Amino acid sequence: MGARIRGPGSTLITGVASIASARAGDLVFAADEKRLQEARRCQASAIVTGEFAEGSSDERAYVIANHPKLAFARMASLLSPIETREGIAESAQVDLSAKIGDHVLIAPGVVIEAEDSVGDGSSVGPNSVLEAGVMIGRECQIGPNVSIHSGTVLRDRVIVQAGCVLGSTGFGYVRDEKGRHHLFPQIGGLLIEDAVEIGANCTIDRGSLEQTVIRRGAKLDNLVHVGHNVEIGEDAVIAAQTGISGSSRIGTGAMIGGQVGIGEHAEIEEGTILGGQSGVLNGKVLRGKGVVLWGTPARPLKDYLKELATLSRLSRKGTK
Amino acid sequence: MGARIRGPGSTLITGVASIASARAGDLVFAADEKRLQEARRCQASAIVTGEFAEGSSDERAYVIANHPKLAFARMASLLSPIETREGIAESAQVDLSAKIGDHVLIAPGVVIEAEDSVGDGSSVGPNSVLEAGVMIGRECQIGPNVSIHSGTVLRDRVIVQAGCVLGSTGFGYVRDEKGRHHLFPQIGGLLIEDAVEIGANCTIDRGSLEQTVIRRGAKLDNLVHVGHNVEIGEDAVIAAQTGISGSSRIGTGAMIGGQVGIGEHAEIEEGTILGGQSGVLNGKVLRGKGVVLWGTPARPLKDYLKELATLSRLSRKGTK
Amino acid sequence: MGARIRGPGSTLITGVASIASARAGDLVFAADEKRLQEARRCQASAIVTGEFAEGSSDERAYVIANHPKLAFARMASLLSPIETREGIAESAQVDLSAKIGDHVLIAPGVVIEAEDSVGDGSSVGPNSVLEAGVMIGRECQIGPNVSIHSGTVLRDRVIVQAGCVLGSTGFGYVRDEKGRHHLFPQIGGLLIEDAVEIGANCTIDRGSLEQTVIRRGAKLDNLVHVGHNVEIGEDAVIAAQTGISGSSRIGTGAMIGGQVGIGEHAEIEEGTILGGQSGVLNGKVLRGKGVVLWGTPARPLKDYLKELATLSRLSRKGTK
Repeated sequence: MGARIRGPGSTLITGVASIASARAGDLVFAADEKRLQEARRCQASAIVTGEFAEGSSDERAYVIANHPKLAFARMASLLSPIETREGIAESAQVDLSAKIGDHVLIAPGVVIEAEDSVGDGSSVGPNSVLEAGVMIGRECQIGPNVSIHSGTVLRDRVIVQAGCVLGSTGFGYVRDEKGRHHLFPQIGGLLIEDAVEIGANCTIDRGSLEQTVIRRGAKLDNLVHVGHNVEIGEDAVIAAQTGISGSSRIGTGAMIGGQVGIGEHAEIEEGTILGGQSGVLNGKVLRGKGVVLWGTPARPLKDYLKELATLSRLSRKGTK
Repeated sequence: MGARIRGPGSTLITGVASIASARAGDLVFAADEKRLQEARRCQASAIVTGEFAEGSSDERAYVIANHPKLAFARMASLLSPIETREGIAESAQVDLSAKIGDHVLIAPGVVIEAEDSVGDGSSVGPNSVLEAGVMIGRECQIGPNVSIHSGTVLRDRVIVQAGCVLGSTGFGYVRDEKGRHHLFPQIGGLLIEDAVEIGANCTIDRGSLEQTVIRRGAKLDNLVHVGHNVEIGEDAVIAAQTGISGSSRIGTGAMIGGQVGIGEHAEIEEGTILGGQSGVLNGKVLRGKGVVLWGTPARPLKDYLKELATLSRLSRKGTK
Repeated sequence: MGARIRGPGSTLITGVASIASARAGDLVFAADEKRLQEARRCQASAIVTGEFAEGSSDERAYVIANHPKLAFARMASLLSPIETREGIAESAQVDLSAKIGDHVLIAPGVVIEAEDSVGDGSSVGPNSVLEAGVMIGRECQIGPNVSIHSGTVLRDRVIVQAGCVLGSTGFGYVRDEKGRHHLFPQIGGLLIEDAVEIGANCTIDRGSLEQTVIRRGAKLDNLVHVGHNVEIGEDAVIAAQTGISGSSRIGTGAMIGGQVGIGEHAEIEEGTILGGQSGVLNGKVLRGKGVVLWGTPARPLKDYLKELATLSRLSRKGTK
């Protein structure tokens, strides 16, 4: 990623802000010419912007990047305040057999049961619960009111937002001759790899006999449901309220829109893109890196749009 | 709203009930002639009903209103028991810098961090968490197990049901050259104005650089997702499991059905009505006060129904 | 259910496992010939399998059943470890008027308010909240961070997973002349009968004036929403993220897929099957034991598939 800095010899930057709210010391982001004009009228001390701003001149600092949004995200992450609180709150219940690393924050009301471990630099938010045998790696951030069940392992730098339930019992029943439902064993684990980030109030089931796995760097939005035995690939992105049924696999770098529903034993291959509200049938395999699919059942976007247009045309014709 | 009371000089009303369960002292609601017949056989002391009941006679009280359901709702709200408990539970953790108003109830297990404020007459349910710098106005009701993040402001008479997450980190990532995702700063706030009511287990993200705003009187059902920078207009109504992506705007008085999905930067203008499961594409503007839209992509109900009929007809014809 | 056991005179079984992870003492499940081959190479002490394995011979035990998956589920349930912890955690807040049965586990941080009752052998997970007047039967399992509102009754052997909200205020508003919304009374109760199992982060509203009822043996997956006055029939199965609007009824043994949306006052009759993402309009009655319906509005699967095929054909033809 290329970026050049132009302006005064040294500039003190203390935070990031929107253009509308920026004060001296702030870094702001100007995505286009119009935003740049606004940014030049604000009090920010530095502007992250694109090549198009090359000619601009000013007494403040310019960061001119060929991918300015990424540059801004990276600089903002360096500037973001670090949680410096640490220690175990008096009202937390930490089992004597639990291993708590250095510089860990265990907030009030947290319950940590037997044989748990929480790695160096991690924090567990108020009133969250770690059942027995949960392993949390280093520098993880667990929000408030999170429930983590036995058999769950989080590697490093995992972020779990408030209200999530990790390692819940999956929805696997067997019907008997009278039509009653008996739970199939749900005793597999849940593995969440490095740098996974999970939005608020998500539910991720443990495996039934195998393991549910969320691979490195995958990002889940709020209220996402992940069923038992699912595997979500590295750097996959899954928007809010999407549901993934049992034993399905989402490939590396796949991008799944909001409210998508994926049936059981389906496979979304590497880099496939599913538009919002799409539906994927049980057992279906969808492939195509960079291919956009939409609708229920999900089909190539171009085909789907043509179908919508055809239907609209026939419907209007039918009226005449 | 016109309403007349007919019957004995004075009647003591102590509560509301269904017709089936009413006892002496209860007020019941009879929406139509059939329900009125049933109501006249029950033990209720008073009946709220419509003009059609004009001729009815009885030794009990009749409230005859031209909008009886509204009259009943209003009378019920006057009769509903008021939370009279107040005080701070011993097991609550309230930071010394927090400002707690008069007649406030802070339930057991609540965590209130630095610089928070809770206004007069408000209550915070058991095990809820207010991160540092949260401001709660007067007469708000926060349910149990709610998580409210820093940067969130609630004005007066806001109701937040159990399990909600307010001010969570939004889902805004920038992809780098290796396909990894970096969080764009999510440091804006969340403002919830007067008389907003939010159902159970909703998630409402803070703004990224700007603010997420829910305007006065808006009502959200359970499990609704609101992304960063969204603005929801006054008196808008949003049914369960609907998701609104980042930077979209919902106009005043709009009515959004259940499981609707709204893309990013979309605009639903004042008074527009979206049927359940509708989908709105990124950047789309939908207008029309009182106009009903349905389907994905959302289109006028009439057109959509015609399309469904056309497809059904063509499909049947195709078989012959 | 027929099953025969073949093999050594006595075999000690201590748990269940996947074929991949099985050790001595474990019981495994082999659904088909291929899995059976794998199972025969693993260290499990016993294999539950079907009639097709009749000829197999080995020094280990075989359970040959005509419904092997059900046999495995039942045996696994007998083998599953029983919660033997009991007692009331010091940090739990239990009102003096609450009735707590024998062998009950009340975990840390739990709040149990006035006049609650918790039956023999039940457990309430960490940081869960039971408002005043909640009744929990025998051998119920309430997960962590669950919120149960006043007016909720659970019968026996009910399982409620983490983060659920039971008995929340329903979404019933009446609009006044100025377009503002007034809550219609939501004072009915919630009854959950024997052996109901509810997934993580579900929300189930109390009735408005009547009662919301979940009948014996019904199973709900994660993030399901149930509105006020709904009745869900015995042994009904409802997959993740489905929403059922107010006053609808789901018949005995109905099977509802994931992300299905059901309007108000609708009726899904006994044994009807609704495919994932289906939508049912307000007031609609759907019947047909064993009939599969799909789409929005939900129609017979055969018709819907034919419509999809017709549209695809016409769209392709239109291009030429």
